[in-house]
Amino acid sequence: MERIPILQMGDLLLVTIQVDMHDQLALTLQDDLTEKIRNTSARGVLIDISALDIVDSFIGRMIATISSLARIMDATTVVVGMQPAVAITLVELGLTLSGVRTALNVERGMKLLQRTDEDEAAS
Amino acid sequence: MERIPILQMGDLLLVTIQVDMHDQLALTLQDDLTEKIRNTSARGVLIDISALDIVDSFIGRMIATISSLARIMDATTVVVGMQPAVAITLVELGLTLSGVRTALNVERGMKLLQRTDEDEAAS
Repeated sequence: MERIPILQMGDLLLVTIQVDMHDQLALTLQDDLTEKIRNTSARGVLIDISALDIVDSFIGRMIATISSLARIMDATTVVVGMQPAVAITLVELGLTLSGVRTALNVERGMKLLQRTDEDEAAS
Repeated sequence: MERIPILQMGDLLLVTIQVDMHDQLALTLQDDLTEKIRNTSARGVLIDISALDIVDSFIGRMIATISSLARIMDATTVVVGMQPAVAITLVELGLTLSGVRTALNVERGMKLLQRTDEDEAAS
């Protein structure tokens, strides 16, 4: 069965989206991800969308859902690698991914998550 | 144009193969990867094949080529996340990926590459 792999790196999970998403694939990803957050006690989820030339409202909603799911399981989601053209289209369409954190690339996303963890530990 | 994203993490590059490979995609990946090794001075390349249910001789040869390309550019390639069924098939077919390093998952692959670096620094 087709599914998107979720890679574990320390207490972070990395999901690279390369293929066209459809309903079933999005649902499988949500199931797999929540299961994996529980099994690995992950604190952060990185979603890499650098391979996507188009982000439509379906993908936008999927990212928002994943982000909400992760949040109630005490993990932070960061979307990384967005192409400039995708950012322009999203803003033009009014899809501003509110409530979802973004970072330029995987490295910056990892730093952002580490910083978030430290802030929480300090407070 | 369809292409497989290459993620940079420190001095490592991570390639997640999720889609069916064909000639053009494999060539594009080789081009992109060599270019990226040069631009980022990467020391290691991780190829995650956990999403692949089947690894045929075409994929096997592609991995061997990437590994050789990386080697002459002074980077080490590690294949990670191979499914048990894939390993069984590869050995039964006599495709033992000789000369290619493997690790169980991304985390172990990263550790393997760090150890290789330290060994080289020590010698």
